Amino acid sequence: MRAVDLIRQKRDGGALDRAAIDFFVAGVTDGTLPDYQAAALLMAIVLLGMSAEETTALTDAMVRSGVRVEYPGIQGTPVDKHSTGGVGDKTSLIIAPLAAACGAYVPMMSGRGLGHTGGTLDKLEAIPGFRTGLSLDELRRALSTVGCALIGQTAEIAPADKKLYALRDVTATVESIPLICASIMSKKIAEGIGGLVLDVKTGSGAFMKTLDDSRHLAESLVAIGMRSGVRTEALITDMDAPLGRMVGNSLEVIESLETLKGRGPRDLEDLSVLLAARMLIAAGLEQDESAAERRVRSVLQSGAALEKFGAIIELQGGDARVIDHYDRLPSAPDRHAVTAPASGFVSAIEAEAVGRAAVALGAGRGKLDDVIDPGVGIEVMAPVGAEVRSGDTILMVHHRAGRGLDEALPLLSGAVRIAAGPPARRPIVIARVGPSSREHR
Amino acid sequence: MRAVDLIRQKRDGGALDRAAIDFFVAGVTDGTLPDYQAAALLMAIVLLGMSAEETTALTDAMVRSGVRVEYPGIQGTPVDKHSTGGVGDKTSLIIAPLAAACGAYVPMMSGRGLGHTGGTLDKLEAIPGFRTGLSLDELRRALSTVGCALIGQTAEIAPADKKLYALRDVTATVESIPLICASIMSKKIAEGIGGLVLDVKTGSGAFMKTLDDSRHLAESLVAIGMRSGVRTEALITDMDAPLGRMVGNSLEVIESLETLKGRGPRDLEDLSVLLAARMLIAAGLEQDESAAERRVRSVLQSGAALEKFGAIIELQGGDARVIDHYDRLPSAPDRHAVTAPASGFVSAIEAEAVGRAAVALGAGRGKLDDVIDPGVGIEVMAPVGAEVRSGDTILMVHHRAGRGLDEALPLLSGAVRIAAGPPARRPIVIARVGPSSREHR
Repeated sequence: MRAVDLIRQKRDGGALDRAAIDFFVAGVTDGTLPDYQAAALLMAIVLLGMSAEETTALTDAMVRSGVRVEYPGIQGTPVDKHSTGGVGDKTSLIIAPLAAACGAYVPMMSGRGLGHTGGTLDKLEAIPGFRTGLSLDELRRALSTVGCALIGQTAEIAPADKKLYALRDVTATVESIPLICASIMSKKIAEGIGGLVLDVKTGSGAFMKTLDDSRHLAESLVAIGMRSGVRTEALITDMDAPLGRMVGNSLEVIESLETLKGRGPRDLEDLSVLLAARMLIAAGLEQDESAAERRVRSVLQSGAALEKFGAIIELQGGDARVIDHYDRLPSAPDRHAVTAPASGFVSAIEAEAVGRAAVALGAGRGKLDDVIDPGVGIEVMAPVGAEVRSGDTILMVHHRAGRGLDEALPLLSGAVRIAAGPPARRPIVIARVGPSSREHR
Repeated sequence: MRAVDLIRQKRDGGALDRAAIDFFVAGVTDGTLPDYQAAALLMAIVLLGMSAEETTALTDAMVRSGVRVEYPGIQGTPVDKHSTGGVGDKTSLIIAPLAAACGAYVPMMSGRGLGHTGGTLDKLEAIPGFRTGLSLDELRRALSTVGCALIGQTAEIAPADKKLYALRDVTATVESIPLICASIMSKKIAEGIGGLVLDVKTGSGAFMKTLDDSRHLAESLVAIGMRSGVRTEALITDMDAPLGRMVGNSLEVIESLETLKGRGPRDLEDLSVLLAARMLIAAGLEQDESAAERRVRSVLQSGAALEKFGAIIELQGGDARVIDHYDRLPSAPDRHAVTAPASGFVSAIEAEAVGRAAVALGAGRGKLDDVIDPGVGIEVMAPVGAEVRSGDTILMVHHRAGRGLDEALPLLSGAVRIAAGPPARRPIVIARVGPSSREHR
């Protein structure tokens, strides 16, 4: 097999068979395929697409580029959740302990933030001492003891994805549904899970801005998961406005803890409970969504989920005292209020602008090697739907000595819309794809 | 400017401006643009195309990647001819001396054969001692004395093209009209010519199989030339069957000499005279095609063109005695006849199959580093239109101890078609594009 023939085949609109895709992925993994040939093929895939069969074969080859983790020490089906990324989306920190407190095994591998969306690892590392770089052995031990770990991708997991992603990033070949699907799903499948709940964000702050595009992405992801033997379903959820009230790493840890204490904002609590309930169903621990939600709410109310989060923090080397002492988390010393320019109702707070403002303040990364300031961020004082008077604070900016404020403030004032009447309520869960869509409409 | 933004712009269907194209070509030339970024951009160009403005800007940037030759020692407009490649196409060896004998300055830079089409340099190097690797100083001196030189591309000429072509070859990004046009025209413009006659081949043995595709290529090439200040025109000519009777390097030198002696096959002589006449017009030496053709035929009949070829051979270190002693050219010792399977008329001799058979015998290259055997080749004994009896020799194979015969013979017997009646005569010049199309229809 010659790489140039394989590139030509895709370029001319043909489909690549499993052998061709294996050859490509193996060559990327061991470095025998030159980057320039991989880049040409990636661009052809971006422009011409891939069939469901090709995307599944690509995912499978990427899984096989590393190990598929097994958990001989546990009895049960490991499950995970994956979000396509949003602003203020800290549900991972809430649902991992919720599901684990209900008896699910959750080997959750997450990523770092890049661009306007935050990353779970960055949020966790706001907790002093918290170590996300666990080995696979440590992950297996954590599952046997606490039932859950929140870690980063290890070198053994889908190494082809790591190499391909680095190449895609510099060759403008990131934006491709088959490549995105294979990247996400190869890592999740390699985790060794048997069930997966996807939270596909839609709206102005999401990667996919329209419901059609989001649904297409969700369907592709679910199809790959099912073909790979993982019970996969997707919720398509709103990302027009930030989720919850807090954006920024320490701030989101605080909001997650508040939610686990039963004091979180309604949108965040409801979505977290639903996602955790779907994980219980994916794990085979519950059949019915209402029963699953009741079980999740019971560990929330009893404090068992909060206790589980404390156990996770301790197991991963973090300072669990942050649970009761938020001042142990890094914070930013300075505040700046973004106020209502008129009286009326908050009709929109554009998530992408808020996310970009947070990056400007130092909460996220514009480039891979940017260093994050865990203390800075944005607090929503008057969420969408709130009635305000001119001059009321809508957003409170937590900044450090003005760093990034010049860039952040125009973004934030532009993100806020005030209308004369209350806005129509948009549901959090907009659509469902996969098993859950049949049970619950 | 960031390469990834430029790739993204093209990927999303946008046009690249002159600054972006300059950045790309400069980066390729000096090596600061990684091959993988160049490859991704090339694939996007192959799949999405380039506008006339982009292609002209690309050509111009590739010209400026090296020198644009000047000829201070001559009074007149240097002219050249370029063929898009065919089988048995040895017109360069005939028209360069024809045009030079009429007073034109011809700094002809040619290439080597790759695939089923032959290369002018390979043919010239069949002449013992002939040196195609002249420096630009030697080229300038040759133009001042003999008026003509037949050389290879020097390192100073469009170095970006050399690097891009090597990358395109291994990334399946060769087949793109804008990239092909920029590659051809950048080298020709950098030669320092003021007029260019293109011979765009069409038919089964050509790069472009259909007239529509050939016309599109011709129009693109002419447009770039005109925008770049070079008086450019194209003849679209037949390449269904080999041109002339000889295919193979020594054999084609012999046929070129025969043609310069007035004993060449009609198709080859007529096309050569027309191309040379168009060169005289492109050089401003004649206005009218009939007058130009008469002038070319006069130097053919007087022997002045043959004498000019002798002077060119001597100036470039070759053994000019080959003109009268063909046995000084390398030859192959063995013969094998391909005969008519039935009586009737030869209705087709498929050029591509003949070209591939010649490569199999050793006359051409399958890969860049193959070594050529100048003596082998194929002689057409009964051309298209000839009446034959079953068993008559149609093709005579010149081979060396059977090398490549197993591969060549099925190709050759498959290439020949015998019909009951004489085939319709296809004209050699099928269409014209550019200045000449207005004067002569």
